[in-house]
Amino acid sequence: MRNLLLTLRYDGTNFHGWQKQNNADSVQARVEDAFHSVSGKNENVLGCSRTDAGVHANMFCCNVRTDCNIPAEKIPDALNFYLPNSISVYSCREVGFDFHARYNAKGKEYVYLIYNGKYRNPFYENKALYYSYSLDVDLLNENAKDFVGVHDFSAFCSADSSVQDKVREIYECKAERDGDIVKITVKGNGFLYNMVRIMVGTLLDIQNGKIENGSIAQILESRDRSRAGVTVKPDGLYLNKVIY
Amino acid sequence: MRNLLLTLRYDGTNFHGWQKQNNADSVQARVEDAFHSVSGKNENVLGCSRTDAGVHANMFCCNVRTDCNIPAEKIPDALNFYLPNSISVYSCREVGFDFHARYNAKGKEYVYLIYNGKYRNPFYENKALYYSYSLDVDLLNENAKDFVGVHDFSAFCSADSSVQDKVREIYECKAERDGDIVKITVKGNGFLYNMVRIMVGTLLDIQNGKIENGSIAQILESRDRSRAGVTVKPDGLYLNKVIY
Repeated sequence: MRNLLLTLRYDGTNFHGWQKQNNADSVQARVEDAFHSVSGKNENVLGCSRTDAGVHANMFCCNVRTDCNIPAEKIPDALNFYLPNSISVYSCREVGFDFHARYNAKGKEYVYLIYNGKYRNPFYENKALYYSYSLDVDLLNENAKDFVGVHDFSAFCSADSSVQDKVREIYECKAERDGDIVKITVKGNGFLYNMVRIMVGTLLDIQNGKIENGSIAQILESRDRSRAGVTVKPDGLYLNKVIY
Repeated sequence: MRNLLLTLRYDGTNFHGWQKQNNADSVQARVEDAFHSVSGKNENVLGCSRTDAGVHANMFCCNVRTDCNIPAEKIPDALNFYLPNSISVYSCREVGFDFHARYNAKGKEYVYLIYNGKYRNPFYENKALYYSYSLDVDLLNENAKDFVGVHDFSAFCSADSSVQDKVREIYECKAERDGDIVKITVKGNGFLYNMVRIMVGTLLDIQNGKIENGSIAQILESRDRSRAGVTVKPDGLYLNKVIY
């Protein structure tokens, strides 16, 4: 038996997230089907995180324990042959048998892309949030830094979440502009349900005056979801890095 | 009566090119429909060029002669409201009544994008040609420079073309790499049917050894389509600039 660590990139537009489910297309189901076509084996492929419907990944890790003996370096091309073009496996290597893509992750980096031009751009359709009012990146950064550190993120978590411990550490949260694209990067040891989307929505609500400038520390303190901003749509969110 | 010059960007994936036609969706038909919805008038919208099915535009110009009196600066938002998200109008201004988007164009710039990573990238699906063998940009440029100047481009024109005069001037033809993306830029006073796609296909066939290095001058001289390379697919081609 071997344990294979696969790294992939996917355009999440037409998937209901990573997680396998009934009556909805998922990345996990596609990867398990492709693995079955390649190896003849029905294996569970264990992902590093759930991702919401419509969320993308530049780097998503998953592992599969199997006695399939195809050399690791041949597996990406073999899987890509069976996968739809919206999913691409770009690395496969053997790891220790106990390794688990989710439980061994020490941290993750997400990026959220905002298309901040005056008129919408067809090439960012489903790939970025379209926000036409000019964003002030300095103001975004002044507020973004208040997310950094160890905090209870209850106010930045979907009310649907059943997770008990909502304390997470954010290592970095910053905004950068490249032409009409504003990129918000968030790096941390773990993330709650919808957490990055609510963090970005809160930064935008500070920009547009719905939430007071400088109030993120108080919102964190309140643990009250209703005091944070909107949950921005998944289109702009990318799992960008998984740290082991 | 006024003459309005519209500038737009479109993702051509789901269109059969610019030109209106029966039983196929086109950008021109969509823009004319949107103009009708906004102004109540049925006008012809005159494009700067046909583009093939699947070809994209970062800058496409068209003009419309009309007695609609909506202020020019309000027209982009009004049209975008009725246009699909794959088309975006980002400028509108009044021009002289004789101006014609096609006949007044002094030149055009196309770019062709090649995704040159080892594994396909879902985010360039339908937006770039996927070419997995590592491209040598210096070799591309050595050959690309032979396109520059005034030449008879019969060898680089689809056999279907009915155009008589196949002499065109190319001002610039160059390749650049940015990470896994190789961008080929071609600027000239006019282009024949499939010309850029055959020029790029010939550069790639020189790279992969099917066509001899240094032979572009001879191929031009031959005026023989069968001596040039393949017609690469439209997915990577963008009309990038129109010069008036």
